[in-house]
Order: sequence, then structure tokens, then C-alpha cells
Amino acid sequence: MITHLSYTERSSLCLSTLGRHLLQLLDDKQTNLALSADVTHAEKLLEIADNLGPEICILKTHIDIISDFSPELTKNLRKLAEKHRFLIFEDRKFADIGNTVKLQYGGGMYHIADWAELVNAHCLPGPGIVKGIAEVGRKKNRGLILLAEMSSAGHLMDEAYVANTLQMAESHADFVIGFITQHALSDDAHWINFTPGVKLNAGSDSLGQQYITPEIAINKHGADIIIVGRGILEAPDSLAEAQKYRKKGWECYLKRCQR
Amino acid sequence: MITHLSYTERSSLCLSTLGRHLLQLLDDKQTNLALSADVTHAEKLLEIADNLGPEICILKTHIDIISDFSPELTKNLRKLAEKHRFLIFEDRKFADIGNTVKLQYGGGMYHIADWAELVNAHCLPGPGIVKGIAEVGRKKNRGLILLAEMSSAGHLMDEAYVANTLQMAESHADFVIGFITQHALSDDAHWINFTPGVKLNAGSDSLGQQYITPEIAINKHGADIIIVGRGILEAPDSLAEAQKYRKKGWECYLKRCQR
Repeated sequence: MITHLSYTERSSLCLSTLGRHLLQLLDDKQTNLALSADVTHAEKLLEIADNLGPEICILKTHIDIISDFSPELTKNLRKLAEKHRFLIFEDRKFADIGNTVKLQYGGGMYHIADWAELVNAHCLPGPGIVKGIAEVGRKKNRGLILLAEMSSAGHLMDEAYVANTLQMAESHADFVIGFITQHALSDDAHWINFTPGVKLNAGSDSLGQQYITPEIAINKHGADIIIVGRGILEAPDSLAEAQKYRKKGWECYLKRCQR
Repeated sequence: MITHLSYTERSSLCLSTLGRHLLQLLDDKQTNLALSADVTHAEKLLEIADNLGPEICILKTHIDIISDFSPELTKNLRKLAEKHRFLIFEDRKFADIGNTVKLQYGGGMYHIADWAELVNAHCLPGPGIVKGIAEVGRKKNRGLILLAEMSSAGHLMDEAYVANTLQMAESHADFVIGFITQHALSDDAHWINFTPGVKLNAGSDSLGQQYITPEIAINKHGADIIIVGRGILEAPDSLAEAQKYRKKGWECYLKRCQR
């Protein structure tokens, strides 16, 4: 199921405008590194986004762990996203019924739909969740990533679950751009595979998070975008570390394109 | 699997202090009605909590759909919870890895663990999610509800999924007090069954939410607490409607206790 096509070649297969844009961006900027910016203060988040922005294709946020959130923060994040050409992916993991996720995505304090090009959702509640998010995001030209396979130990996403997730994605292929997954799910090369739990040195944390290396993720499992968090942020020099991950991720991709 | 024991009888079987307290509260206050207060403004939420507080055992919130949230809101909600003797249940549906949910539960703008006695979580990410939430909530004497079965059409919680959820609950029975479920899962009478999607008139909405009646929920499926939202809030006189639901829910419970 691993494609040998370039991101640019796959871009034209994509039904989502945002998906096409992202695939093209990967080749243009020559990075498939997404940074998981799990910090708890606004200033720190902006500092990371500005310093590491040039190295990444996506900044992944958890806006609801920021203790001093203000609308200024998301305005400034958008400015940095334009400056460094990365997309913002709010890792909200929506998991409620359609009527509720519409309000959580479009409203509240965060107005996620207004500043994050990408969000993700679990298909667990059934197709109404995708429909609810699409009702808000489609008209804003946003994209949705479905969670197919997590990186945490003992997750309950079995084969039937993953097949159902793929089916819900196929029913909304103009809005769903791909999957949070450990493996490519389909031969359709327009799906973008986002793989969390990636570290240069594999291992695990004390709460069940498991890590694989970029080579395994990209060349063996078909990851398109590697999501790295603690591997970069806990390094003494995070910029140098991000550059290491970027270089490694890109080499693995170029190798995969060789037919 | 439906118990005929009273809430008070079951209270002594419970390993969680908060679970014991809630079961006792139900009999003391003679209500098994939880109100799903899905409104988007702070003032409206407080108004509902104050007006309907005397009728309910639990106020269920979605704090992240409130567009004008401030810490004052949760302070005032706590005051109303003490005044009217109800618990607050933030329907957050945590669905991430342990390391992330710890931050989402204890920190951010909302500090959920500081004002909500109850939160819920999906077991989908594996046991690390329960462990992560417990690390924050246990020392604050909070309780966790696991989502076993949703009320939305086409949900992916199959038999194996529900069995896994029950097992994770059993491993943390001092902290997990019960389930969001459409049916009682176990013969162990200490689990509290919270059932959403309840309306005096059954039916569905346009985004896949499905409704059952209080009789079916309580007497046929073993619900202990019925969660009602739009059925009450969309009525012309919500207080009168809440009283109707409270009366109906209580009659069904008394009927179930007759051996």
C-alpha cells in the first residue's frame, strides 16, 4: 500500500483543495516534518512557531492546554503561519455527536475553524461527527484528518474500526484529507498519512505512548508527514534537532520515491 | 443485568467516594435527572443552572462552547452547585494519550479538574488515558465516567469495544464511577449508568442523534441517570418540562426497585 509517487504527483489526485495545497507545499518547502508544539504558555508557543517555523510543514497545537490563551495568540500564530508557510493543525480529537462538535469547532472561546486549517476527529460516534464538522469547515476551505490508528499502547482501533474510518473518509473525500495512522490504509494515493509517535530513537513514555523511527514510519509504514513533539522540544537545541528530523524525514521520502 | 437495588443500597458497594456521594444524593434529593446545558453564553448557563438546579442531580456542561467564558463563570457555577446540591459533569469526552489529557484536564484556560466533579473519556486510546486522568483527578476526589455506548447513529462501539471499556473501568474502580451507555453493562451494581439521548417523545435529529424514552432507558436498559438536553431546553417552559422529566424518571426508578 506504500506509494512511490511524489507529493506533487499525488496532489492532482486529491479532491480537497486544502489537501492539494498541502501536498504541493511539502515538495515546495522540502519538509514533511510536523511539529507537535505541546507547550502551556502563549509566548512559548509563539517563540517555537517563529524559531522552528522555517523547518516544518505543519504546526500541531493543543490550544486547550495553553493557560494564558487570548485571541491575540491565534492572530499571531496565523501571522507566523503566513511568514514561514506552514499550516496549523489543532489536534482537538473531536469525539462527540454532530450537533456538539459543530459548536466546539466553530464557537466557544477558541473559534478553532477560524485559524486552524486542519483539525482531527475520531469516527467512534458514527458518521454524524464528520458531517457536523464538514458543515462548519467546508465553507471555510478547511480540511479534516480522521484518527485511524493511534500511537498509544493498547488502543482499541481494530481492523473493523480502521475499515469503518476509511469508509467515512471516502464518503467525504472533498473534506477529509487523510489519517492519523501508523500505516497507510489504502492504495488511493490522495490520502495523506500523518504519523505521530516518531522519534530518532524508538521507545515509550510512562503513560503508554510508543515511538517508532522516521525510517520505519516513512519507508516501511507509508507515513507522509511525521509528527514529532518531545523528540524535538526536549532536546537542548530544538532548532538543530528539528533540522535533523527534517533532513531525515526528507531523505526517507526521496528514497521512497525511487522506483 | 438490571439491578433492583436502591441507589442508597448500591452506594455502599461503590469503591469511589464520589460515586458513593452521588448515589446517596440521588435518593436524598429524589431526582435522577441530569441536565445537558448546551448553551453558548455564560449568563444563559448560570440562569439555567439556577432555575433548574433544584430539579437535577447533575448539570452537564460543554465549557468549550461558551463564547464568553471567564473564570468567574466556573466560580459562579460552583456556588449554584452548592446552593442546589447538584454535581457538575464536564462532558469533555477526552480522547487523547495520557500525557496530553493530563494537561487538558488539569490546565489550559478551563482548569476542568478544579470545578467539575465528573468528566468523561473514551477508552479508544488505551489504558493510558484513564491513568493520565486519574493522576490529576484522584487527589482532588473527582470521578471519571467512561463512554461505553453513545446515542448517535452508526457509532463504532461494538461488543469487544464495550467489553474492553468495562475492563479498563474495573482496573480503576476507585476512580471510574460508571458509564455513558444505552444499556447496563455488568451485574456489578456499583457502576452508575448515565444515559444520554433521552426524550419523552423518541425520535432523532438531522446529525444522527437518536432518542429513547425514560421508561425504555430506566426500566428496560438499566439507566440510573437520564441525561436530557434539548427535550427540556427547547420547551416553551423549561422548568415545567424539567419537572415532568424528573417526575417520570423518578417513577420509573421506584417501579424498578419493586421486587
